[in-house]
Amino acid sequence: MSNETTLASERFGLRRLSNWGRWGANDERGTANFITPAVIAQAGAEVKRGAVFFCGVPMDNAPPTHPGRTGIIHLMPVVNVAAAEVGMKSQGIFNDNLVTMNVSAATQWDGLVHCGYDGAYYNGVKTAQVSAHRGATRNAVDKLSDSLITRGVLVDMVAHKGRDAEGHLAPGYAITPDDLNACLRAENVTVRSGDALLVHTGWTAHWYAHPGQRASYFASQPGMSIKTLEWLDDHQIGCIAVDNTGVEVKPSEVAGEELPFHLVAIRDLGLTIGEVFDFAALAKDSRDDRRYTSFFVAPAQALVGGCNTAPTPVAIK
Amino acid sequence: MSNETTLASERFGLRRLSNWGRWGANDERGTANFITPAVIAQAGAEVKRGAVFFCGVPMDNAPPTHPGRTGIIHLMPVVNVAAAEVGMKSQGIFNDNLVTMNVSAATQWDGLVHCGYDGAYYNGVKTAQVSAHRGATRNAVDKLSDSLITRGVLVDMVAHKGRDAEGHLAPGYAITPDDLNACLRAENVTVRSGDALLVHTGWTAHWYAHPGQRASYFASQPGMSIKTLEWLDDHQIGCIAVDNTGVEVKPSEVAGEELPFHLVAIRDLGLTIGEVFDFAALAKDSRDDRRYTSFFVAPAQALVGGCNTAPTPVAIK
Amino acid sequence: MSNETTLASERFGLRRLSNWGRWGANDERGTANFITPAVIAQAGAEVKRGAVFFCGVPMDNAPPTHPGRTGIIHLMPVVNVAAAEVGMKSQGIFNDNLVTMNVSAATQWDGLVHCGYDGAYYNGVKTAQVSAHRGATRNAVDKLSDSLITRGVLVDMVAHKGRDAEGHLAPGYAITPDDLNACLRAENVTVRSGDALLVHTGWTAHWYAHPGQRASYFASQPGMSIKTLEWLDDHQIGCIAVDNTGVEVKPSEVAGEELPFHLVAIRDLGLTIGEVFDFAALAKDSRDDRRYTSFFVAPAQALVGGCNTAPTPVAIK
Amino acid sequence: MSNETTLASERFGLRRLSNWGRWGANDERGTANFITPAVIAQAGAEVKRGAVFFCGVPMDNAPPTHPGRTGIIHLMPVVNVAAAEVGMKSQGIFNDNLVTMNVSAATQWDGLVHCGYDGAYYNGVKTAQVSAHRGATRNAVDKLSDSLITRGVLVDMVAHKGRDAEGHLAPGYAITPDDLNACLRAENVTVRSGDALLVHTGWTAHWYAHPGQRASYFASQPGMSIKTLEWLDDHQIGCIAVDNTGVEVKPSEVAGEELPFHLVAIRDLGLTIGEVFDFAALAKDSRDDRRYTSFFVAPAQALVGGCNTAPTPVAIK
Repeated sequence: MSNETTLASERFGLRRLSNWGRWGANDERGTANFITPAVIAQAGAEVKRGAVFFCGVPMDNAPPTHPGRTGIIHLMPVVNVAAAEVGMKSQGIFNDNLVTMNVSAATQWDGLVHCGYDGAYYNGVKTAQVSAHRGATRNAVDKLSDSLITRGVLVDMVAHKGRDAEGHLAPGYAITPDDLNACLRAENVTVRSGDALLVHTGWTAHWYAHPGQRASYFASQPGMSIKTLEWLDDHQIGCIAVDNTGVEVKPSEVAGEELPFHLVAIRDLGLTIGEVFDFAALAKDSRDDRRYTSFFVAPAQALVGGCNTAPTPVAIK
Repeated sequence: MSNETTLASERFGLRRLSNWGRWGANDERGTANFITPAVIAQAGAEVKRGAVFFCGVPMDNAPPTHPGRTGIIHLMPVVNVAAAEVGMKSQGIFNDNLVTMNVSAATQWDGLVHCGYDGAYYNGVKTAQVSAHRGATRNAVDKLSDSLITRGVLVDMVAHKGRDAEGHLAPGYAITPDDLNACLRAENVTVRSGDALLVHTGWTAHWYAHPGQRASYFASQPGMSIKTLEWLDDHQIGCIAVDNTGVEVKPSEVAGEELPFHLVAIRDLGLTIGEVFDFAALAKDSRDDRRYTSFFVAPAQALVGGCNTAPTPVAIK
Repeated sequence: MSNETTLASERFGLRRLSNWGRWGANDERGTANFITPAVIAQAGAEVKRGAVFFCGVPMDNAPPTHPGRTGIIHLMPVVNVAAAEVGMKSQGIFNDNLVTMNVSAATQWDGLVHCGYDGAYYNGVKTAQVSAHRGATRNAVDKLSDSLITRGVLVDMVAHKGRDAEGHLAPGYAITPDDLNACLRAENVTVRSGDALLVHTGWTAHWYAHPGQRASYFASQPGMSIKTLEWLDDHQIGCIAVDNTGVEVKPSEVAGEELPFHLVAIRDLGLTIGEVFDFAALAKDSRDDRRYTSFFVAPAQALVGGCNTAPTPVAIK
Repeated sequence: MSNETTLASERFGLRRLSNWGRWGANDERGTANFITPAVIAQAGAEVKRGAVFFCGVPMDNAPPTHPGRTGIIHLMPVVNVAAAEVGMKSQGIFNDNLVTMNVSAATQWDGLVHCGYDGAYYNGVKTAQVSAHRGATRNAVDKLSDSLITRGVLVDMVAHKGRDAEGHLAPGYAITPDDLNACLRAENVTVRSGDALLVHTGWTAHWYAHPGQRASYFASQPGMSIKTLEWLDDHQIGCIAVDNTGVEVKPSEVAGEELPFHLVAIRDLGLTIGEVFDFAALAKDSRDDRRYTSFFVAPAQALVGGCNTAPTPVAIK
């Protein structure tokens, strides 16, 4: 099917990029297939000091995500309830909490039906296989509730580009393959098949450091150039997470296409991409001990039929 | 403060059990303090084959949780949207999903303000410090988004009690300290400070295997006897997760108190307890390779001010 | 378009029933068009004593609606908040409340895109004109936020059939055109074009009177026979509301079609139908003063693009 | 009880204003008690031409309400569902819709536990009688699901102040008793006990007419001066609705108290006040036919235990 179409990568001046069929006609996991048991076993060896770094943002009422999305409503509807009041025999007091949220309101993985084009999602799944009442009958995020667990490789672009004073790359800066190669060389890391690429742009920290500048936060962001798509494919990256709101650079590098990286990564490569991560603490620690690799554990929630998921990512060193 | 009161453990005929003040007057993490970096580092060595076992239940519209709780509403409000329809310049089609749920609707950790008594929560936090509009200003679950990562010790009570044919312990069966000791001896495991105790009763699997018996599912369940509270304290268990709906046995062992284990564990010991887990696959694998330990990773969601959390627990071997 | 198809009414052995085109090709209001200003002006004269009867059910957590629907989650997330706590300069304390509900969880009007068949809704609206992210771009309920205000004619079937002892018609009883004619004759009412027909079966009251019988409440209910569809059309009824969960009798009178009345009424006649109303108090008063007509005011909520609506219906006498 | 305290009205330089006890120690309806059957019967005579004016705003995702409130999430989770897909025997296709909203997100009545001070709400209800899990056990809005139906008197301040060119009163303009008297005299209306006062400031229309000016919309608004509280009490007004976001003028007339009108009106007078109404169409019609009175029907939703309610108000002439 993908053979008959002009792929998005080709429209964008890249080489033909597609993993359709690579892991069989029925595959629903995409590049997470690179994360084999052997990869995980090797990644486990990254746990050395027992230091844990939470790589997400607080789930409060103002996370740095797309302004069109519903925020997080987090309530404690049952509060300090003496048990007797709710018909329970107990001397206790109890609380429950309730959440209403766009799953993409804070730290998130975009799953393999988050976006598509030409009437299809990753591996030829048809748009009719995704509906409001049934969710995604193929490629749903719950297929990855035992994956996205692998070696994490932090690409500390803030340090590499000498942006420590600002704390973040320049808004609109597009990270290139050369940037990745140079940064990894400086960090003395050789990327392996199945790695999670964790890209530190500093943009999430900027949200919290400068609340007054939030109005312009979304329109212009540092992020991945579409040129890195070939690099990610060459290196068989298992998943990529960035501390901005859309992984890719904004404004877009392609006229008339706001999210070109998304189209290729998710629909053609089957690459799970992570947004609104926070690597500030991990980056600080990595500079201190000069080790940029970790055991990265961020499995997808088991949201049956879900298109996106809100993980609790941790990097363990 | 706890010294002046008759503690729940004493009312229930146990020895005086309390960790208030053990890690300082301001501690908000309770027994998760046993999970030190050294514990985590040692636990990481459990990753050997790179096999991952998801230990939660599917987040669908009928998880086996307390019938009084709001279920999971999981919708995909934006489905197959041609980008142009939502004012985006793109040839793509996009989906988002939205969740409304009681955080305790499926697999859950009860946090340290989930329950209390005598006007106080763990470590002397007052009921006034928890409110509907602010949530928990102390002891909230987001304090553990970088914890609950440790060695998991599976206590396969189903196998140990010879209940393979039924697949679960008898409803109402109360697991005792002797049971734990005997089962661990048979498994050749010595519990260590900071371990996560993962108790396999088979009750979650029973929900899925026998939908017709759900009406009686909650009232009578296998689970922990209150007598194990002293054992958990003696062994400095970091957290405990069970594959039933309330960790403890139902009906209650204490007249006039439906949740006696909860009161002591959460409020006095500061023990994070996990409900509606599923250890069926992990148990099967453990019987096969005769290894009952794993690297257990189940950090709390960063729900600011939350009382409970819905983790995505994985055991990695 | 409707001319080329076999209509549902014909399949069900009725005469050809359709109002498509009757009020123009772009009409979105259906039989609410019968409710003209002249009809409303005349109906206003029903206000005599100033007695008001609320004709809905309480919006609590257990209304008598379809069991597959999400119930009402009604919370007060901000409770007794001293203003200073939320950054407001005030000596006051404040509360807000929040609702999450299937709009059809309690008293409801089914709007003109609630159901269709053969790829179309009332007046030829195509299924593609209704989507999860945009809602109904045609025939939405907010078109009737200034309508469904007319003379209400109570058809007190409970009294007419001598079912005062039970308080409701027999489960499964199908109300026929002869029933309507006889009952209205006994009540001394002549139906007029644009009237709201309010049918008292007693079934809603049964829900509240006999909580123990709720398990069998839905499967068998008294309600309208499909034969009344011709009668409703003949009499140019503006809207119909019944105190059961689906207007029509259950089980269905048509093999293989659970909701035959719905298909004809909503899709072909453009008739707004009301469910889960409560006419107990109105019926009692009507027996007392022997007047079965009222000024019935139940406009649709202004839910932009909505398919159903939760009105607050009142009958004023 | 109220006798022992300095009332808010006294603090604000008004005369002592309180209706506590006026309709008995257990009254939960406040000034809605002025709306007697006789008042309603007389009001019904306002229905003459049968013209209906919806006086609320569209329930979409951007209504003009307080920016701190959760907006309206309105979804159609079940869309174009062929019945067979959801296990129903039918040739039909069906839709349902779901709403999550702060009840005060759009057109709203503030009920008698929306605000209080000094630990009490209207008629001496204590703050402990209102909680997150039980809602309001006294003074809840569902007590008024058969009220707020009376004669509506439109006070067209836009016309009276010669602000037709702008379409609204000046931001920050405080409507005084003299304004009310003069405007009503010009309209040839004598206010009666139990009337609903409908105040046209033009501010709601301004929201829709000038989307670009929304950032400054809330901070400065035309609205009622606190001096009108005595007038409202003198004239035994049943309820008041205004087309701005808080009934009262903003900024506040009282230093250190953002919502002085609220405290007196809701807590001391028991006056139900309505916000985010829209009287543009009603005002236009009233100018045309020189009749400023109508039959105003806006009963509260039957939200059990609710503090606020989202009515569907109509004025019928």
